[in-house]
Parts: sequence; structure tokens; C-alpha cells
Amino acid sequence: MKRLLNRKADELRPIFLGPGFVKNAKGSCFVKFGDTHVICTATIEEKIPFFLKNTGTGWITAEYGMLPCSSSNERIEREAVKGKQSGRTQEIQRLIGRTLRAAIDLTMLGERQIKIDCDVIQADGGTRTASITGGYVAMYQAVHQLLKQRKIAKNPIMHQIAGISCGVVDGVASLDLDYSEDSNAEVDANFILDSELNIVEIQMTAEKSPVSSATFNELFDLAKKGTREIAELQQQAIATLK
Amino acid sequence: MKRLLNRKADELRPIFLGPGFVKNAKGSCFVKFGDTHVICTATIEEKIPFFLKNTGTGWITAEYGMLPCSSSNERIEREAVKGKQSGRTQEIQRLIGRTLRAAIDLTMLGERQIKIDCDVIQADGGTRTASITGGYVAMYQAVHQLLKQRKIAKNPIMHQIAGISCGVVDGVASLDLDYSEDSNAEVDANFILDSELNIVEIQMTAEKSPVSSATFNELFDLAKKGTREIAELQQQAIATLK
Amino acid sequence: MKRLLNRKADELRPIFLGPGFVKNAKGSCFVKFGDTHVICTATIEEKIPFFLKNTGTGWITAEYGMLPCSSSNERIEREAVKGKQSGRTQEIQRLIGRTLRAAIDLTMLGERQIKIDCDVIQADGGTRTASITGGYVAMYQAVHQLLKQRKIAKNPIMHQIAGISCGVVDGVASLDLDYSEDSNAEVDANFILDSELNIVEIQMTAEKSPVSSATFNELFDLAKKGTREIAELQQQAIATLK
Amino acid sequence: MKRLLNRKADELRPIFLGPGFVKNAKGSCFVKFGDTHVICTATIEEKIPFFLKNTGTGWITAEYGMLPCSSSNERIEREAVKGKQSGRTQEIQRLIGRTLRAAIDLTMLGERQIKIDCDVIQADGGTRTASITGGYVAMYQAVHQLLKQRKIAKNPIMHQIAGISCGVVDGVASLDLDYSEDSNAEVDANFILDSELNIVEIQMTAEKSPVSSATFNELFDLAKKGTREIAELQQQAIATLK
Amino acid sequence: MKRLLNRKADELRPIFLGPGFVKNAKGSCFVKFGDTHVICTATIEEKIPFFLKNTGTGWITAEYGMLPCSSSNERIEREAVKGKQSGRTQEIQRLIGRTLRAAIDLTMLGERQIKIDCDVIQADGGTRTASITGGYVAMYQAVHQLLKQRKIAKNPIMHQIAGISCGVVDGVASLDLDYSEDSNAEVDANFILDSELNIVEIQMTAEKSPVSSATFNELFDLAKKGTREIAELQQQAIATLK
Amino acid sequence: MKRLLNRKADELRPIFLGPGFVKNAKGSCFVKFGDTHVICTATIEEKIPFFLKNTGTGWITAEYGMLPCSSSNERIEREAVKGKQSGRTQEIQRLIGRTLRAAIDLTMLGERQIKIDCDVIQADGGTRTASITGGYVAMYQAVHQLLKQRKIAKNPIMHQIAGISCGVVDGVASLDLDYSEDSNAEVDANFILDSELNIVEIQMTAEKSPVSSATFNELFDLAKKGTREIAELQQQAIATLK
Repeated sequence: MKRLLNRKADELRPIFLGPGFVKNAKGSCFVKFGDTHVICTATIEEKIPFFLKNTGTGWITAEYGMLPCSSSNERIEREAVKGKQSGRTQEIQRLIGRTLRAAIDLTMLGERQIKIDCDVIQADGGTRTASITGGYVAMYQAVHQLLKQRKIAKNPIMHQIAGISCGVVDGVASLDLDYSEDSNAEVDANFILDSELNIVEIQMTAEKSPVSSATFNELFDLAKKGTREIAELQQQAIATLK
Repeated sequence: MKRLLNRKADELRPIFLGPGFVKNAKGSCFVKFGDTHVICTATIEEKIPFFLKNTGTGWITAEYGMLPCSSSNERIEREAVKGKQSGRTQEIQRLIGRTLRAAIDLTMLGERQIKIDCDVIQADGGTRTASITGGYVAMYQAVHQLLKQRKIAKNPIMHQIAGISCGVVDGVASLDLDYSEDSNAEVDANFILDSELNIVEIQMTAEKSPVSSATFNELFDLAKKGTREIAELQQQAIATLK
Repeated sequence: MKRLLNRKADELRPIFLGPGFVKNAKGSCFVKFGDTHVICTATIEEKIPFFLKNTGTGWITAEYGMLPCSSSNERIEREAVKGKQSGRTQEIQRLIGRTLRAAIDLTMLGERQIKIDCDVIQADGGTRTASITGGYVAMYQAVHQLLKQRKIAKNPIMHQIAGISCGVVDGVASLDLDYSEDSNAEVDANFILDSELNIVEIQMTAEKSPVSSATFNELFDLAKKGTREIAELQQQAIATLK
Repeated sequence: MKRLLNRKADELRPIFLGPGFVKNAKGSCFVKFGDTHVICTATIEEKIPFFLKNTGTGWITAEYGMLPCSSSNERIEREAVKGKQSGRTQEIQRLIGRTLRAAIDLTMLGERQIKIDCDVIQADGGTRTASITGGYVAMYQAVHQLLKQRKIAKNPIMHQIAGISCGVVDGVASLDLDYSEDSNAEVDANFILDSELNIVEIQMTAEKSPVSSATFNELFDLAKKGTREIAELQQQAIATLK
Repeated sequence: MKRLLNRKADELRPIFLGPGFVKNAKGSCFVKFGDTHVICTATIEEKIPFFLKNTGTGWITAEYGMLPCSSSNERIEREAVKGKQSGRTQEIQRLIGRTLRAAIDLTMLGERQIKIDCDVIQADGGTRTASITGGYVAMYQAVHQLLKQRKIAKNPIMHQIAGISCGVVDGVASLDLDYSEDSNAEVDANFILDSELNIVEIQMTAEKSPVSSATFNELFDLAKKGTREIAELQQQAIATLK
Repeated sequence: MKRLLNRKADELRPIFLGPGFVKNAKGSCFVKFGDTHVICTATIEEKIPFFLKNTGTGWITAEYGMLPCSSSNERIEREAVKGKQSGRTQEIQRLIGRTLRAAIDLTMLGERQIKIDCDVIQADGGTRTASITGGYVAMYQAVHQLLKQRKIAKNPIMHQIAGISCGVVDGVASLDLDYSEDSNAEVDANFILDSELNIVEIQMTAEKSPVSSATFNELFDLAKKGTREIAELQQQAIATLK
């Protein structure tokens, strides 16, 4: 199978990271992975979940949503109307929060919480890894503000993290699947790595039948290649913040 | 009181109407009234509310939401997490749907529904009137598609409609209030008019104490001036659609 | 079209205001506008919404409901069973609370809240304006109790307010629409005025196509005539309270 | 302990049964047991619960609610706002429906449902038994209409039923407890009997410590006396229906 | 009608009471009444419902649930998925809590709450009475722990209580109905008695048509016989606790 | 750190698989991994999710819950009372369903659904992998019934699957973590493999800071060892079914 725009199996889609998209947020980033567009914002709250009260420790959490018209299939029913977030939504926002927490030394953040909101404007595969990638930039900007306002003395961010999806499509291990590839993949995997290519989280699912360790290793190698390139783009985006 | 950027009492904020912002939607418009930014999209559904079954008549409805970081105050809790839409949200989306229905001859639409989603990216006053103004453009684009696809034979849009807020701030009747003005206004009004300046809907509330008919008339005149200018911008935006 | 009982276009239905209907409430009023019957009650709570804590200011709020058999159409599903209040219900109760707040100097009420419950026993058009009209009487009675108990020193009620609906039916501007008129109206409007005929709130909707300012003015004049008569009936009802 | 108004231990409060209170309902009854006031209405629905489809059998069901200001204690939060009916509400409405079903031969009703709504305007003890007593009258009126309209050929009501509470207060077995008695009772019982004094349902609870069979028998005798008197009042109320 | 396994009309099913089934609970009991299997557990919480704050008084409450596959009919939808407990569930858990409270002197418990969870693994009739019977044992074990830990000085349990269902099946008054009997019963009754055979709670419902006092008495006698036997089994189970 | 009962780093806890525990279910298995106890049941439904209508294809889905007293920490609030399933619950039940679907050729199942319920009686780490392991046995038993009843001609189960957790605790890669280990682990991983040791799903999370590929490989090797042993136990359990 030919990929769209003659993309090679180990090639990322065009990626855009635009920090500062939402004026009212403490940090924000408009992320594009091809036709997947996500607005990530960061809020700083001077309060903390109950279980952290009086521990001096901070917290990172995330929420995720899709605008009703973001899907290339039919309109997605608004979760505020349905009255609850779907299992998929909750799974994704738990993943975003968990992986971003691994980037940071929470004890250095003080008793405050950074909340990352990821809202999908257009969905074309890989919205969760795009959210983590852009969420990192928004979080960075919010932490940057805390430093500038001298609310914290030292940068608590210990690891630069990014997410990328890959999978096996028509028997070919491929990087950064778009929706048409993702919905036909034999294997679907999400790798959240740091810029040193260490593992923050791995999720891999055999969608059709069980697969070998060799397949896993092939996908892991693709993910490392992609992460190297994305980490570079994150660096450039962050450099534009004053 | 001086308005921001030396705006005059009868002057609109800079307005931008960008049709086609969301690739997957049948119609879309990114609306900006100053720092108020709203994404409006239109979905065409070949089904109809129960009470219209077998009447040959179509329907227009709307949903409204605010991204958590859109507010210039503190983060807004996500309605999908709270498990229900607030009374304010429902009031606004009912208004958007009701006024857009007045623009169209529903019997000419056939038994189908156009659903307008208005999602606020940044809020700085006047989100409901911006939503109606941009929602009209998104609806126009969707209807345009139905015509091109020959699903309907004649354009069912009978009236071009737009919304504008105005109010009395520090004793001065003013057009197109931003958030800082709106939250201190003595009177708050929303006018939804057609391009002939006929009335689709009027909502006016005395926020502090009851006011005279003269005040109402002053605001109505401002709304007419604003609507003339906005209607012109809508025409330009629509002209860019092929 | 002939109106029921030969009512003239500018004539109210028979109105009854019975204060003290519910023994356990601090204030109450059984309101009838023709076959529209509403029980309004007032509760005094010595607590205040969060955003008013330590401001010395009071609050008025309202809740609205319809008994399942109140409708002349089919039975209305009980909102407690559906698990949420409809958008219409919330819109109406927000209107009742907002307009009754405009009647009162909240800083003179002290840090307490008066909650107005409006429950519709029979619905035949105009339930929201009947609720405001009767809600005013129930609120008055509750304030009266606070004065008698010397919890407040001076009457904080600054304006006597009432609500009335009007609309254009078969081309004729008409006062106080019943359900059969309301459901066929070309224009539907609710005026909440004070006894000096100043404006508290105006809501006007063109149900079919946009209408001229002249139509608005005709309806406004009818609303003023109706309000004068209703305000007189409120005075009589209040005079019966000792 | 003296009862209010010198009522004797085996004496009912003044009871009023006013059929036809709600114009829009197929059957209705305003019931008063002293200061306990309940509006009961009946709706006829030409549809049937799923499990009865194509059995030719009808159904009776009930819903119960309390207006927020009905309580002599503090205001009751509206269940439509809380988003669910309480356990107490559901228990009561299941009781009302179940006991009214025992009054009727459901196979003679045809595949239709009568829904009884019981809404408490004032609560002073015994709202569930008052609801059953008045619900019977509303149901009777609805069945009467079906007969007049020849939708059913024969009266399916087989038993005239009524409810009455009794209990042990300060050691004295007493009939028809008001709220102040009920909240101090050692034993609380509800008897739903037919006019032949046969048992439809018995609920008896020892609120403090377990009690003997003798106590049960004393209460049962009171309930029989009360039911005889209430059944007579139901007959009179029904006789006024034409 | 022959009963299963040649059981006589006044004969209990084989009953098993296994205390200590759940390691993590403060008290627990696996109860079997024939094929009805329930896990009862007790939790001690050092907090108290709001209305008991600062009264020195404790509380007992209960929650009830059925595993989806417990029913001998089709799978029961999980209440956590439906988003609410059914009326039946709430009615049953209110009964369990209320009757267990009658067993105990709450003032001797101190300001703490014992929460009894009853989860049905297999349902074959009589789950609520089995829950009360086993809930008593779990509660006993939890109280026992409080005594051993010297959190309370004296045993607050005043009455040993148990529950048993009975009913009239094919005209025969029968003890301890299984599901096939229960679903065809003319009369259905639950008796919660103490070991002295005094009454804690009686619920009796004529499922088909009203029944005489004689029937009630017959059932009451069966219930007393059953309770004597069950109380003996509870004693044996409790004796195994060290 | 010493493991409980001198367990070695690569040693499983005692595992028990008891098929047929719940009489009313089409398939069932009581699974114990040490003190983690789960009841798995299988229901066969002759209906199919909407998106599979008329495709001839079947479906496997799962639901997961924890009894309130199952936790070794404090009591877990009942999700039926909270009114929704937590994100964790949904994530787990989606995992169980997804991995069991990979075991089966859905086209050979016909248009029917097998629903796997996993209810945790005691939780001591690894409830999700225990659920998959026992869920497989329950599913096998249900499929076996379909074969015996000749509803399907050939066994659609293509792969025998099992789940096992492992992690790094105090720097040591360890198999089958109990709760005390799991809550202190540096890395937490779940492997769902088939009996050929191919991958169905991998989830690995660095709980503290990112980890190397070498760590991943160590854990994967442990998982393979564990799966070999568990697969053998599943074979033995299945052999007892006639």
C-alpha cells in the first residue's frame, strides 16, 4: 500500500507545534500531526488533590475531548450532552496525565497542580500521542511562568517527553499512522519516550492475532526514530518562548 | 470610561470570519470578535427529530460549549466531566438554534437536519452573538453543499441573520461589549437581526435596576448600525466559498 | 380569530393571586392566569452562594417545575425521573431568579438567600410570567417576615415587578396569550416590567420570520397596559397579609 | 401525650377528597388528611411496559414527588435538580403502584396503562397512605372515562382500596399519625386494606426495639376502623363524578 | 405442588453461614439459603452521617447489589453501567440497614458507622432476608473486633435478628420460598424477627387479590418456626469466631 | 526486599482456577492469584452491537467491578452509588474485552455476543490479569456449550490467552506483583500473551522515571515464564469441564 503523499514507512507526517495559541491560558500549544489538530492548554491551580494535602508535592493531570465535528467519520456526540466521558476518553486522559507526570519532579513543583487540556479540532489518527507531544510544550510554558514569577526556584522538568504511534499496516511496520492506516492496522502501538529514548510508557495491541517479539522490536525502532525528530521540533517550539 | 484601543461607543471590535476552518465539517467558520474566538461547524444529518417525522420538513439545531481554558477568569470545569450542560449553556444553544431556524424555510430543506456546533476557544464577551454570526456562515456553506450535490433544488435560506451584543456601561450605550465591559454593564442586550434590520430575537436585561424605553431605543439603534457592518462581512466571507 | 370567552386583544385573562397557600412556606402564592395555575413559595436560607461569602450581600434564586399532569397535551415526563432539568426549565428558572433580583437591594438583605419555587399545577400559556408575578408576592411575604422578626431593619424591595406575555396571533397583537394562541403565534414576547413601567427584562422572538420595530412597539404598549392592571392586583394581594 | 385538637387515639384527622382538581388530567383528586395535602392525577397511556406486549393485559404504575416547600422542616431539595429520585421516593411510588394494581383486574383493562402521579403540596405525616387513598379516586375517575368512551366494556376495578398509617406513640397505639407523632413513634405501620378489610399490603417497622404480636394486632384493629371510615369518604367522592 | 427435593411446606432450605469469607473486611459472612448465595461484609468507618455529628451516637447502614450473572433468568444489567441503583435495590438496602439498626443500641457504638455490604452471587429467592441474616453475622464480627480493640467497652448488640421469607403458593402457606415459588406466589411476605420472636419488621403483599387476616397469621407462624432454626445457626456461626 | 512467603523474583503466587463456580452462568471461573480473588462469568446473548448487525460476525465484551470490601485499603465506594464507572474500571474492562476478542475468530461465532463479567472479591494486585486469565476459562466454557448445543459447528477459539503482571520492585525485576509490591514498583507492566508466547497486548509504565529497553526485555522474559505456567493451569481447569 502506498502512503498518502508518498510518505515512506518510517516517515513522520508534517508536524507543527505552535505555542501560545490561547491567550487566556498559562501555557498552550496548537499541535498538528498532518490533519490531526489538537489545542493543548495548561492551567496552574494553587490547590492539590486530596491525597497530596500537606505533602509539599505537586501534581499534573489532564483532560481530553474531541469537538463534535473533529471526526472524519460522522459527527461525534458531545460528551457534555451524553452526560459522561466515554471509556476511551478517560483512558486517553489518564495516559496523558500519567506520562506528563513522569517528566517532572513533583516534589519540586510545590503544592500546586498543572492541568493539561487537550481538545481535538481535527482527528486523523494519533490524537493521544499528539496530545502528549503538545501537552509537554504547554506544560513547559506554564512551568516557565512559575519560574519567571519566582513561585518555584528551580525547573522541576527532568525529562523531555513525546509520544508517537506506529503499527503494522498491510504487513509493513509504519511510523505515525493516519486514520485510514490506523483503522486497518494489524498491530497498533503507542510509544511515549523521553528525548534520551528511554521508555515512559508502551502500549501495544495485536488487533487481529497475536504477534511475535520481532514485530515489537521493529515498531520500537521506528518509534525511536520518530521521537528523535519530534524532540527536535519541541526544542525549536520552546526556544520561541521568551 | 475609555474603551480598549480607543474604540468608540458605537464601534465594533475587529471581526474576522474564516469559513472552511475544519476540514471534516460540511460547513465551518472560525469567528473572531476581538479576543472572542469561536469555531462554528455544521453537520448535515439525514434524520430528523421525532416530532417532524413524515412532515417533509427539516430542522436546524445547535450545540454550544466552551473549552476549559477559554475564559479570561479561572479555568471552566469541563461539562463532560461535570456530567451535564449548565443552564447557561443550554440557554445559549437554544437561542442559536432558534434564531438560525428563523433564517431558513424549513419546508424547503427536506427531512434533514443541520446541526451547528459552536465551540468557544477564547471568550471575551459576546460569545453567543459571535456564535450566531459565524453559525450563519457555517450553515450557509452546508446548504451550499446540498445545492451543489442537488439534494435540494432551491436555496431555502430566506434571511441573512447576525447577532450583536450591546449594553449600557458607565451610563454610556455601547456596541459590542468585551468581557470587562459586559461584567460591569447596567444593561445587557443581545439583538439578532436580519440584514434588512428586522427583528429575529431581542433579549434585554436590566442588571442593576429597571430602565426606561429610551434606553432600549438607544441600544436598538446601535445594534442596527453593528448589524449592517457585520452583514457586509458575512457577505464577503460567503463570497470566498466556491 | 375570536379569543376564548370573547376576550379582547388587549384584555388579560381572569387573574387570581392567593397568598399563604402553603402553610409550611415562609411566603407563598397560588397564582391563576385563566387556566394557568402555579404554586409559588419562598424559603429563607441563612446561607449564601459561595461567590457572595463575606460580602454582606444577599441573593434571590428560583426553581421551576411542572407537575406531570399539568400540560393540556400529553403527560410531561417527571424531570426527577429523567434525571435532569430540561433546557427550557433551566432557562425559565434563571429568568425568574434574575428578574426578582432586580426588584431588591441585595445589600440590604444581609447574607441570606430567598429561594422561590414555582410549581405549575396547570399549564395554559404564560407559566413563566405567572411565576414571576406570583413569585414577587411570595418573596414580598418572606421579606415581610424578616422585617417582623427584626432580622432586617428596612424593606430591601425597591421595585414592584410583574411579568406578562404577549404576541402576534393571526396578525393581531394580543395580550396574555393562552396555550392555543401561544402555539400559533408569529411573534412571542415576555415583558417583565416594574410598576412604573420601566424595563426589567424583555424577550421577544419572531417564531416564523423577522418582524419590524413597529410590531415590537405595539407589543410593548400592550405589555404596559397589562402590567398596570397586574400591579394593582399584586397590591391588593399584599394588602391581605398582616 | 395529648393529640392535637384533642384527637382521640382511634380518631382520623379531618379528611377531604376533592376529585377533578386538575382540569387537564383524565382523573384527579386533591386529598387532605389534616395538614397533609396531596394532588393525585391519573393519565391513560395507550402503551404498555415491554414485558406486557401482546398479552392483552394492562398496567397501573405510580410516581411520587414532594414540592420543595411541602415539608414542615427545612426545604426539600428538588429531585430534578439532584438528578435522581431518592430511595424513599422510589419505595413509596413502588408501593402506590403495587397496591393500586391489586385493586384491578389488569386483563380487563386492555393493553393500556394508567399512571398515577402523587405530588405532595404539604406534608404532615402519612403522605404515602394519603396518596394511595386519593390515587384510588383518581384511578376510578380515569377508568370511568374509559367506560364512558366505550374503550372498555366492563369495570375492571374489583376492590376498593385505601391506605392508613398507624403507630405506637408514647406507648399508645394510635390511628393516622401526624408528623410530630410519626417522628417519635416506637412502631410505625402502614396498612393498605380493601373496603372488605382484607389485606392488600402491610408494612410495620419497630423503630426502637422489637415488639410483640399483641402490638401488631392492636394496630391492625385501628387500621380496620380507619379504613371503614375512609372507604365511606371515597364512596362519597366517587358519587360526585358524573 | 411438590417442592424441590421433597421439601415440606414448613421446611427451610439447607442454610450455610460462613463467617470470615473476605479477608480484607472487618466482618464477613458467606450466606447460602439453598441456591441463594450472598457475600455480606462489614466495614467500620470512624465517621458518621451529618445529622448525627456531635451526638455521640453511631449508625448502621447497608448497601445491596447483585452480580450480573447471579440471576437464574437473563443477565442483570450492572447498576454501575446503568448509572443508578434501581428502586428495588434501594428498597432492599434501606430494609437491611433499618432492621440491623434495630438490633443495636446505637448510643453504645460511639460516633462511628458500620456499613454492611450485601452482594448476591447467586439469586434463587429470598436474597433480602438472606442478606439480613448474614449481615447480622458480619456486623457481629465487626462489633466483636471493636470490643477486642477496646474501642467500645460493652457489646451494643441488644437483639439477635434474622430474616425469612414466606408466602402462599398454590394455596399453601410455605416457608422460605425459592425463586420458582416466589414468582408464582399469591402472597409474599418477609418477616424480620429477633431470636425472642418479637417483630422487627413485617412486609406482606397480596400479589393477586386481597387476603384475610387468617392467612397473615398462618404465615407469621411459619416465620416464627423458621426464625427459631435460623437463630440457632447464627449462634453456631458466631461461636466459630475467636 | 524479601517477598512474602519467600517467593522468588520469578515465581508466581499460588494460582487456583475453579470453573463452574456460578450455577446460573453459561461459563464461570473463580480465579485466585494468591489473595487476589475474582469471579469471572460468561453470558451468551443472541444479539450483537449495532455496528455488527447483518455481518454474520460475533463479539466478545467485558465488564469489571470490585466489591466494596475487596480492597485491602479502605472500603471502595460502590460505583452503582456513585452513578458511574471510574476511568480505571473502564480502562480495565476495555482491556479484558479487547484481549479476549484476540483469542477468537469472531466470524465463526455467528451473530452473538459473549459477555464476560469479572467481579473482584478480594484485591491484592493483578486483578486485571487475573480477570483475563479466568475470563478465558469462562469464555471457553461458554463456547463449549455452544458447540454441545450445535449452535456453532467448529470451535472459534484460535489462541489460548492469559495475562500476568510484572514490574521492577526495589530494583529487581519481579513476576506477579502483589499489592504491596505493585504500589512501590518503579515499573509496572501487564503482558497478555498466548500459549505460544506471542503478544496480544503489552502495557508498560515507568512510574518514577523513564527506563531502558533492557528493563523491558527483562520483564518480558519473566512474563513468558509466568505465562507458560499459567497456560498449563488453564489447560488443567478446562480439562475438568465435561
